[in-house]
Amino acid sequence: MHSPIADYLQEVLDTVRDDTGGEVAGYIPELAAADPDVLGMAVCTVDGRVYTAGDADIEFSIQSISKPFAYAAALTDRGFATVRAAVGVEPSGEAFNELSLEAESRRPKNPMINAGAIATHQLLVGPHATVAERFERARSFFSTLADRTLELDERVCTSELATADRNLSIAHMLRNYGIIDDDPHEVVEGYTRQCSIKVTVRDLATMGAALVNGGVHPQTGAQVVTPAVARETLAVMAAAGMYDSAGEWFTRVGIPAKSGVAGGLLGALPGQCGIGVVSPRLDRHGNSVRGIKAFHRLSDDMGMHLMESEPHGSTVLRSTTVRDGETWFALQGAVQFIGAESVLAAFQDDTTATGTLVLDLSRVDRITDVGRRMVLEGLRRFVLDGREVVLVDPDGKLPNPDLGDGTFPTVRAGTARGR
Amino acid sequence: MHSPIADYLQEVLDTVRDDTGGEVAGYIPELAAADPDVLGMAVCTVDGRVYTAGDADIEFSIQSISKPFAYAAALTDRGFATVRAAVGVEPSGEAFNELSLEAESRRPKNPMINAGAIATHQLLVGPHATVAERFERARSFFSTLADRTLELDERVCTSELATADRNLSIAHMLRNYGIIDDDPHEVVEGYTRQCSIKVTVRDLATMGAALVNGGVHPQTGAQVVTPAVARETLAVMAAAGMYDSAGEWFTRVGIPAKSGVAGGLLGALPGQCGIGVVSPRLDRHGNSVRGIKAFHRLSDDMGMHLMESEPHGSTVLRSTTVRDGETWFALQGAVQFIGAESVLAAFQDDTTATGTLVLDLSRVDRITDVGRRMVLEGLRRFVLDGREVVLVDPDGKLPNPDLGDGTFPTVRAGTARGR
Amino acid sequence: MHSPIADYLQEVLDTVRDDTGGEVAGYIPELAAADPDVLGMAVCTVDGRVYTAGDADIEFSIQSISKPFAYAAALTDRGFATVRAAVGVEPSGEAFNELSLEAESRRPKNPMINAGAIATHQLLVGPHATVAERFERARSFFSTLADRTLELDERVCTSELATADRNLSIAHMLRNYGIIDDDPHEVVEGYTRQCSIKVTVRDLATMGAALVNGGVHPQTGAQVVTPAVARETLAVMAAAGMYDSAGEWFTRVGIPAKSGVAGGLLGALPGQCGIGVVSPRLDRHGNSVRGIKAFHRLSDDMGMHLMESEPHGSTVLRSTTVRDGETWFALQGAVQFIGAESVLAAFQDDTTATGTLVLDLSRVDRITDVGRRMVLEGLRRFVLDGREVVLVDPDGKLPNPDLGDGTFPTVRAGTARGR
Amino acid sequence: MHSPIADYLQEVLDTVRDDTGGEVAGYIPELAAADPDVLGMAVCTVDGRVYTAGDADIEFSIQSISKPFAYAAALTDRGFATVRAAVGVEPSGEAFNELSLEAESRRPKNPMINAGAIATHQLLVGPHATVAERFERARSFFSTLADRTLELDERVCTSELATADRNLSIAHMLRNYGIIDDDPHEVVEGYTRQCSIKVTVRDLATMGAALVNGGVHPQTGAQVVTPAVARETLAVMAAAGMYDSAGEWFTRVGIPAKSGVAGGLLGALPGQCGIGVVSPRLDRHGNSVRGIKAFHRLSDDMGMHLMESEPHGSTVLRSTTVRDGETWFALQGAVQFIGAESVLAAFQDDTTATGTLVLDLSRVDRITDVGRRMVLEGLRRFVLDGREVVLVDPDGKLPNPDLGDGTFPTVRAGTARGR
Repeated sequence: MHSPIADYLQEVLDTVRDDTGGEVAGYIPELAAADPDVLGMAVCTVDGRVYTAGDADIEFSIQSISKPFAYAAALTDRGFATVRAAVGVEPSGEAFNELSLEAESRRPKNPMINAGAIATHQLLVGPHATVAERFERARSFFSTLADRTLELDERVCTSELATADRNLSIAHMLRNYGIIDDDPHEVVEGYTRQCSIKVTVRDLATMGAALVNGGVHPQTGAQVVTPAVARETLAVMAAAGMYDSAGEWFTRVGIPAKSGVAGGLLGALPGQCGIGVVSPRLDRHGNSVRGIKAFHRLSDDMGMHLMESEPHGSTVLRSTTVRDGETWFALQGAVQFIGAESVLAAFQDDTTATGTLVLDLSRVDRITDVGRRMVLEGLRRFVLDGREVVLVDPDGKLPNPDLGDGTFPTVRAGTARGR
Repeated sequence: MHSPIADYLQEVLDTVRDDTGGEVAGYIPELAAADPDVLGMAVCTVDGRVYTAGDADIEFSIQSISKPFAYAAALTDRGFATVRAAVGVEPSGEAFNELSLEAESRRPKNPMINAGAIATHQLLVGPHATVAERFERARSFFSTLADRTLELDERVCTSELATADRNLSIAHMLRNYGIIDDDPHEVVEGYTRQCSIKVTVRDLATMGAALVNGGVHPQTGAQVVTPAVARETLAVMAAAGMYDSAGEWFTRVGIPAKSGVAGGLLGALPGQCGIGVVSPRLDRHGNSVRGIKAFHRLSDDMGMHLMESEPHGSTVLRSTTVRDGETWFALQGAVQFIGAESVLAAFQDDTTATGTLVLDLSRVDRITDVGRRMVLEGLRRFVLDGREVVLVDPDGKLPNPDLGDGTFPTVRAGTARGR
Repeated sequence: MHSPIADYLQEVLDTVRDDTGGEVAGYIPELAAADPDVLGMAVCTVDGRVYTAGDADIEFSIQSISKPFAYAAALTDRGFATVRAAVGVEPSGEAFNELSLEAESRRPKNPMINAGAIATHQLLVGPHATVAERFERARSFFSTLADRTLELDERVCTSELATADRNLSIAHMLRNYGIIDDDPHEVVEGYTRQCSIKVTVRDLATMGAALVNGGVHPQTGAQVVTPAVARETLAVMAAAGMYDSAGEWFTRVGIPAKSGVAGGLLGALPGQCGIGVVSPRLDRHGNSVRGIKAFHRLSDDMGMHLMESEPHGSTVLRSTTVRDGETWFALQGAVQFIGAESVLAAFQDDTTATGTLVLDLSRVDRITDVGRRMVLEGLRRFVLDGREVVLVDPDGKLPNPDLGDGTFPTVRAGTARGR
Repeated sequence: MHSPIADYLQEVLDTVRDDTGGEVAGYIPELAAADPDVLGMAVCTVDGRVYTAGDADIEFSIQSISKPFAYAAALTDRGFATVRAAVGVEPSGEAFNELSLEAESRRPKNPMINAGAIATHQLLVGPHATVAERFERARSFFSTLADRTLELDERVCTSELATADRNLSIAHMLRNYGIIDDDPHEVVEGYTRQCSIKVTVRDLATMGAALVNGGVHPQTGAQVVTPAVARETLAVMAAAGMYDSAGEWFTRVGIPAKSGVAGGLLGALPGQCGIGVVSPRLDRHGNSVRGIKAFHRLSDDMGMHLMESEPHGSTVLRSTTVRDGETWFALQGAVQFIGAESVLAAFQDDTTATGTLVLDLSRVDRITDVGRRMVLEGLRRFVLDGREVVLVDPDGKLPNPDLGDGTFPTVRAGTARGR
C-alpha cells in the first residue's frame, strides 16, 4: 500500500506549485543562481517515520534555519546562564538583519535574528575555540540530528563572505559591547560556514523531529539534547522565529518555525513531527513564498495549530470495572497532570467500596513526575481509608511506589486482566 | 477522599505566600486600598472540574484580563476581517500602556495592549452600539463563560475614570487615525467598565477552560465561541499577553497568560485547563509577583509548558490482533494527523493477510477531519488490495465512511470485541 | 521715488507665482476652502519700515506661527525655569504632530511641535487662568507685536475643534504625565483659539521684527519682551522651527523660521528684519510651497544666511588721527567684543606717543557690556602708561567711565572734531 | 600695553579652573593617560589677531573637531551634490556614536556624528584614493587652516585603532548600504588617523577663524575654502555639532561649536572669531566640562550668541549733508540688504532737492550683490527724476555702475569730502 501521507504531501505541493511569486535571494550570486522551481517537502514523526514529496533530496544551504540548532548546541556546550547572558529571548518585531540589541544589557534580543545568531555561534564549544572547531561543532551536531554526514557548500560560503558587511557590522558592534570577544571577522566566517551547511528537506524534518521529541532522536533513539534544551529551543523559535511577523504566523499557522534565505522552511510541532519545505523564491520578509503557503495548508488541514484544543486527559482512565471483588482502574497513554487529575477524580467518585483497589498500568506509555506524585497520593489516601491497594505494572512504569509513609502497594506481576 | 490536587494548589500558595515583594497598584485609589495579602488560586479542567486554594472566592476587578475575552466577543460579533482591520496580532515589545500603533495601518499592534483593547471594546455589538450595550455585551459574555452573573465594581470604575488620561489620549489618537469612530470619552468609559467587572480566581479558571476546550464550556457544554475564535484568542494571548516580557514568559512558563492590575493572572493551557491566581502586589511590569511565582511552580511541577514534548500519537493504535480469521485494528483517543499516521503505518506493515480487516473505533473520542480523511484513504487502499473492510463504530465517530469511490465498508453494529 | 525693495519683493513673488504644486490643508473644512492662489509677502526692518508685495493685507489664521510668540509670552509670564520644566528646546527630528516627549522628563521636546505648543499655551497667564484669559493673553500680546488689534477667526476655530483628536490625544497624555494640570479639552480649546487668530504677512513681518530687534518694537519703540526672551525665542525657532527638516532649512536658507498650516511663513533674521509670506498650498511637510521658494530666493539674493560671514568688527575703529598734538581714536557703530578688540589692538599699536589720547564716541550707536569693559580697560592702561585720556561722548554712550581704580578720564563736552 | 583680552581669557580660565568634574576619556589608553589638568584657550579674530591664555601651545589630538574641517575639505574635493548624496545635514538627536542613518537614503544623518564623519572622510580626494592620500589631504588642509605643519599622534592613533569596533561596525554598515565603497578597515584607519592629528587651542581658533571669515584665512589672506563651503560647514556645525544637546547649546550658548574626546572644543562665530578651548575631563555626553563652562562665560560676557540682536543696518548711512549745492550721502561699513535698505529709505526721504546727488563710498568696506543692485537701482531712479548722480568711490567698491539702462553716474576720483 502506497502511503496516503506521501500522497497528501504531494497534493500540498501541487496546490502551491503554480505560485511563482517572490524572488530568489539576489544579494549573493551563488544563491541567485539557485533553480527557482525547486519544490520539496518532508515530514518526520516522533516515531521516526519520514514522508516526502517533490525535491526531497536536493541539497540547499541551511542558512538561518541553522539558528535554532546552533542555539541548542550552544545551550548544551555552555549552559543556560552563559547563553542567556549573551542573548535574550524576546521577539524583536524587526527584520532578521536588524541589530536589535536590548537597551541596557546590549544583548541581541534573541538568537533568531542575525545579531543573536552570531553571538550564539561564538558561544559554541568554548571561549577559546577556533573557527574550524566551532564550525565542526555545528556541522557534526547538525549531522547527528539529520543522521547523516552534512557538508559545507564552499561556493555559497565564499559568495556570502564576499558581501558580509552587515554581519561584520553586527559582529564589530557585539564586540564593542563585550557580547563577543573574538575577532569579528573570524566569528562571521564561522557563522557563515554554519549557514552554508547543505541540507535537504528530509534532513530538516528529521532534525526538527528530534527537538519535538524531547531531544530524543526519533530514529537513532539517542538523546541528542536534553529535554530542557529542546524545550527552550522550540520556545524561542515559537516566540521569535518568524521575525517581524511572529504574531501573524503564530495566529495563522501556530507551528514554531524558522526560514532560511535559500528557501528552506522548518516547522516543529511539539510531540508530533518535524517538517521541512524548500522553495527558493522569497517574499519581502525573506521567507519562501510557496513554503509559507504549504504551511498554511498543513495547519488548516491537519489541525496542527499549537492552540488547537484537543482534550488530552480524557482517555487516560480507560475503564473502571469490578472483577472478582476487586475494583480495577485501568489507565492508558501518557499520564500527565490532566490525565492524573481524571484518575484522582475517578478515585474520589468511587462508590464500589470493594476491599481491594487494583491500578492497572499495563497500557501506560509514560508517567510524568507530577502524574506519578498525584497517582501515588491517591493510592495513599485509599490505604488511609482502609482499603488494600494492588499495582499491576508489568513494564515498571511506576517504579519505587512509596506511598509517602514508607509503605508500598502490593505489586501483582501477572498480565493485566483489565483491558 | 480529599483531593490531592486541591492540596497541591494549597502547597503552591504556601510556597509563594512569604514573598511580599511588589506593590499594590497605586495609581487608582480604589485599587491602592486592596488587601495586599489576598492570595487565591483555582484550576478548571476541560472536563469542568474545579480545584481551588486560598482566597478563591474573593472578588477583584478583572482589569486587563478582560482583554482576551473581549477580543473573543469582538471576533464573534464582527468577524475576523473587521477585527483584524482594526487591531493587529504582533507582539509589541513594549509596556501595556504604550500606544504601539503599526507604521502604516495605524492599527494598535495587538488587542492585549491598551490601545488594542480599547479598539476591541469599541468593536463589540456593532457600529452604533451605546456604552451601555457594549458594557452589557462584555458583562453577559463574561458571565456566560464564568457560568454565574458577574457584576460591575462601581467604585473601582469611578476611580479609574477619574485618572484615565492615558487611555483618553489613546482613544483620541485612535479616532484621529480612524480606528474608532465613537466619542473617545464614551469608548474609554465603556472600556473602563469592562475592566471593572468583578471576578474570582474560580471564575478566571472556568473562563479560561472554555477557551482551551475548543470554545465549549467545560461545565455547561455550551459552545460559547467557535473553535476558530477560541484558537485565535489563545494564540494572541500566547504571542502578546505578557507585553514586553512575552519571550521570557514563553520560554520560562510556556502557558498562554494574561495579567490584570488588580493582581489577577489567567493561564490557559490548550486542551488541558484554565488557571486563575490572584495576589495584588505587582512587579514593575504590572504583573502579580506571587502570581508569576505560582505559575513558575505550576509549569515546573506539571510539565505544562506548551513546548514540553509528550508524544501524542503513539497511543492511538491500541492493538492489532488476529481473531477468528479477522485482523482487528483497535484505535483509541483522539485521532489527529499524527495518530492517523501511526494507523496508516500499521496498515502498511500489516502482514497478517487475513481476508477481513476490522477497524474498531469503539474507544475513539474524536476524529479530526484530517484523521478521518487519512483513515478512510487507508481503508480504501485495503479494498483495492482485495480485502474486505469492516467498521466497528458504535458511537458513529466516522459517519458516512465513503471510501472515495462511492463504496462503503461494512459497518458491524455490535459491541467492540477488541479492547 | 517708488521703493526698489517693494519692487524686488514683487519680483520674488512673480518668480514663485507659477508654482502651483502642493495642496491646501485638507483636514479642516475651513482651511480647505481657502483661496489657493493667495500670495503675499512683507518685510519689516529693525527700523520699522515695512515693504510689501502681493496680498499683503489678506488675513489668514496664524496657526503654528503662533508657537514662537506664545512661547515668548509664556517665558514672560512664568519665567524661564517654569517654562523649561515643562518644555524642552531640542529639535525633535519628527513631524509637527508627533508626541515627541523626552524619555525621562516626559517634557515635549520643544515648543514648536504641537505637544510643546499645547504645554506652552497652558503656561500663559498663570496656573489657574481660564480659557478666555489665556486666549486673551495671546491675542493681546500678538496685537501688541503687530501694532494693531488682531481678531479670532471663529469659523476656522470651530472647524478645527471639530477634528482636534490628535491634539486632544496629546493634551490627555501631557496631563497623564503631569506636564499640564488643566482639563485637556479646555487646553486644546484655548490653544486652537490661539492658532485661529487672524494675521496678514504685514503683521507677521512686524511681529518678527520685534523679536530680532532685541525685543524692542521697531515702530512703537516699546520693549515688548526682554532681550533674553527674544533671544531664546529666536534660538528655539532656529533649532526646531522647521520640524524634521531643521538641518536642511538651516543649511539652505539659514533664517530662523516658522510655518503655519494656513500657508503662512515667518522668518526672523537677528538684528535685521522680520519676514512674512503667505501662500496656502503646502508640501507634504505642511510648509507653504511658494513660501519656501520665496525664502530660498531671499536667502540667495540677499546674503541673509545666518552663517554668511560678513566681518563685523572692522568698521568700529573709524580713524586714528593726530590733531593738535592729540591722538584721536574715532569709533562708530555698535561696539561689541570684536569691535572693542580692534580698538584695543589699535591702542596697542599706537606709536604716536602724543601726551593726550582722545577717544571720540560721538558716532557710536551702542556699546555692549563687554565692549564697555574692554574699552575702559584699554584707557586704564594708557593712564598707567602716563598718558592723559580724554573722552568725547556727547550722547553718553559710555556713562560712568570708571577706569577701575576710582579715576575717570576727562570728558570733553564739545562736538566731535573727527568725522 | 598688555592686552586686556588675553587677561580676560585668563580670567575666564581662572573661573572654571576649580571645576574638576568629569573624567578623562577612558576607553583609549593613550587618552586616559592625558594630564587632566591641562587648561588652555585661544581666540582668533577675523583680522587674524590671536589671544591666548593657559596651555595654549600644548598639543592634543583633534578627534571629532576634525569633522567640520574634513567636511569642508570633502565639499571642496567632491562638490556639494556628491557629498550630500552620502551624508545628510539633519540633527540626529542622538549620541555621537549612534548609527543614525536616514530611513530611506541610509545616509548618515549628518557629518558631525561618527557615521557621517566616516562617510565624509572616505569622500576626500576622490573615489580611488589611498588611506595615505586621504590622511595627507586632511593633514595638509588642517595645516593650511592652522598656518603651521600639523603632525599625527601615532600613539593615540594606534591606541584608538585597537579598540575601533564601533567605528568598524559603522563602516561595514555604510558599505552594506553602498554609502562607502572602500574597505571598511582602511576607511576607519584613515578616519582614525585624521582624528589623531595634533593641534593646540591656538590652531583651533585660527582654523575656526578661516571658516567664519568667509573662507579667507585671517592671517595669510588665502581663500582656503569658498564662501559657500564655509557657510555650509558652519551651518551643519550649528545644527548638529553638539549631538543630542544641540538645542540646549544653541539656546544657551548660541555659538556653532564642535567638541573632541581629547578635551578640545571649537567655537566659530560668523564674521567674528574662532575660539579654541582644551580641558580633558569630559561630561557624560563626551564634552569637556570646563570647556563648556568657558563657552557659557564667553557667551554671557560677550553677547556672542548668534541670536543676539544687534541692529546691523543703522550705521551704513553715515551722514546726509548738503555741501556746495550737492547732497552727499556718505556710506560706511558693509552694505548688505538691510544697510542698502536704509540708504534707499534715505533716498526716498530726501527733500534737499539739490540738482546733484553725491554717493560717497570711500569708507565702505564691501558691498554685497544685493546691496549693489539696490543702490544702483536707487541711483537710477534719481536719474529718472532728472537729477545728476555722482559717485565717489576711490577703492572701486562699486565697479561697473551700470544704471540698468546703459548709462553710468559720473565718477569723481578725488578723496571723499564727507567723513
